[in-house]
Amino acid sequence: MSTTQVTSESQGQYKAKAFSAASATSKLVPTVISRREPGSHDVQIEILFCGICHSDLHQVRNEWSVMPTVYPCIPGHEIVGRVTKVGSAVTKFKQGDLAAVGCLVDSDGSCPDCQTGLEQFCPQLTLTYNSRDPHLGGVTYGGYSDSIVVKDHFVLHVPSNLDLAGVAPLLCAGITTYSPMRHWGVTNGKKVGVVGLGGLGHMAVKFAHAFGAYVVVFTTSENKKDDAIRLGADEIIISSDPTQMKKHTSSFDFILDTVSAEHDINAYIQLLGRDGNITLVGAPDKPHAVSAFGLLFQRRSISGSIIGGLAETQEMLDFCGKHNITADVEVIPIQKVNEAYERMLKSDVKYRFSINMESIKSD
Amino acid sequence: MSTTQVTSESQGQYKAKAFSAASATSKLVPTVISRREPGSHDVQIEILFCGICHSDLHQVRNEWSVMPTVYPCIPGHEIVGRVTKVGSAVTKFKQGDLAAVGCLVDSDGSCPDCQTGLEQFCPQLTLTYNSRDPHLGGVTYGGYSDSIVVKDHFVLHVPSNLDLAGVAPLLCAGITTYSPMRHWGVTNGKKVGVVGLGGLGHMAVKFAHAFGAYVVVFTTSENKKDDAIRLGADEIIISSDPTQMKKHTSSFDFILDTVSAEHDINAYIQLLGRDGNITLVGAPDKPHAVSAFGLLFQRRSISGSIIGGLAETQEMLDFCGKHNITADVEVIPIQKVNEAYERMLKSDVKYRFSINMESIKSD
Repeated sequence: MSTTQVTSESQGQYKAKAFSAASATSKLVPTVISRREPGSHDVQIEILFCGICHSDLHQVRNEWSVMPTVYPCIPGHEIVGRVTKVGSAVTKFKQGDLAAVGCLVDSDGSCPDCQTGLEQFCPQLTLTYNSRDPHLGGVTYGGYSDSIVVKDHFVLHVPSNLDLAGVAPLLCAGITTYSPMRHWGVTNGKKVGVVGLGGLGHMAVKFAHAFGAYVVVFTTSENKKDDAIRLGADEIIISSDPTQMKKHTSSFDFILDTVSAEHDINAYIQLLGRDGNITLVGAPDKPHAVSAFGLLFQRRSISGSIIGGLAETQEMLDFCGKHNITADVEVIPIQKVNEAYERMLKSDVKYRFSINMESIKSD
Repeated sequence: MSTTQVTSESQGQYKAKAFSAASATSKLVPTVISRREPGSHDVQIEILFCGICHSDLHQVRNEWSVMPTVYPCIPGHEIVGRVTKVGSAVTKFKQGDLAAVGCLVDSDGSCPDCQTGLEQFCPQLTLTYNSRDPHLGGVTYGGYSDSIVVKDHFVLHVPSNLDLAGVAPLLCAGITTYSPMRHWGVTNGKKVGVVGLGGLGHMAVKFAHAFGAYVVVFTTSENKKDDAIRLGADEIIISSDPTQMKKHTSSFDFILDTVSAEHDINAYIQLLGRDGNITLVGAPDKPHAVSAFGLLFQRRSISGSIIGGLAETQEMLDFCGKHNITADVEVIPIQKVNEAYERMLKSDVKYRFSINMESIKSD
């Protein structure tokens, strides 16, 4: 990696192992990076597991024009580990505690969004990777690493009863699906649809089921049925079958659309009842074609959502502890990360890869 | 008109004057129709004014594939008049009272929508015109007439202090803009945008101003400024000027989009702040292209709305009485209705035509 990206300021630094990509077409390879020594409000974490999010792949391959990638790029924002050191002002963590970090590592703390616990909308937020790093210069480096240092406000407590490999994806896939369902009032007795049964979708099914909703999974493939039911679905609808779809016209309270590929959103809008909402958590490159009539006649709405604030993320983790919810993961060593990316592109994972960071020690 | 459309049932009938169109390409011409004698729950109204809504023109010209026109067609759903007779079971109106009728004249009364006062979403609703008429057969006939008979639940009280010509458009243009602003929480201090300054838009400006919002009118034409300010706007934005638009990024709580012509809705979505909503009350033929990213980043939403329920329509009329709000109208005799349609197509009216039904007596 380029050392110009980590020009030291007054702050002390230490070396950490990581996997980084040197360009949009490079594979992720072992490297050594500098992390800041924990300041008074910082928590240093030994990373035990890091989930692989589709965003990691997009960022590594520079596929987002709105967020160009700075190389070397070290992705990873589904981080769970153990506290190795805390700053002098840190009160909520101590060495040895389990800890987790999601997509955010800093924000201004003073804007109306931060003041209401919605740090994900802060105009000055610092993402876990590929964001300007105010401490060391360059950009932030994510969780494909053996260690990370994060301001205490952005570090979360992990319930002790959960499998840590399956906890990691909760930090992005989990909160991304939990938050909009809470926001739009998914509760006991509501009829909830989930479009797409991947990393996000399978978490959505688990949460909606745990909230007491009647959960319907939309899929194009009949052979996903057993798995959908196992995850908590009450019913599946083959979305390519107009007869099945029509039977559910105007009947849903809420639909979570996790699909990033282009698809006809009007088919789902028609299924919403009065004041029903469909929330998008995937973003296709091309705009959705939305018929105004579909929205008018039942006062339906479409919205978007991204992750969640810190308080809500902690609430989600606590909820998972209470209901024994984790992601279904395939645990891999970090040396398999490039292969995992290729498999992820083919949806060949049930339902999320989780990197066992113990493996990085051998690199 | 075809008498097969008004085959009598057991109910008594009387003759009323009206203007009807015989086909999609016909002009509206004088005719005589049958109305039912008021039943026990009915109110008979002498129509004093009827507003001309763009929907009238669409229906007369059979421009809506989802609601094919049955001819002869007698439009008009912005009706204000005086009670001439009431049925034996009617308690809330008496002869001589002012009364108004909007887009609905019946619904099933028992569905969840009706039970919550949202009759506009009832699956069995009867529209004021071109809906199946359960009493006389054929379709319902609207307010381009000297008289109408309507079930009491669908008849509204009119505040006595308002100009009746300007009250008529409240029954559609008024409630269509009032309802979504109430639903999405437009109150004192909110920043509210109005897209399009026509029949609906000018009412939206008046209501938003009366609610205490900071009101911004989006227009393509600088010369609408004075009028927008007079109607209650605090600011106008020339929507074709990207610099002006950009200045307001992420700052609106609510935008009401009254434009039925094709336009770029993403430009307005970008202006919404966190949890901001844009509600469509106009419906272009083609779907809107909606970028998912615009919705994701501030948890913004798009929705649609149609008119309002009976209770809310009464609330709106009472609000208008209290705040002295009516539509800005150009009063015309019914003999000018065909000319008015042509002028409406060119937006050559400030801001709504209101037919003085006194004129129909001379036909």
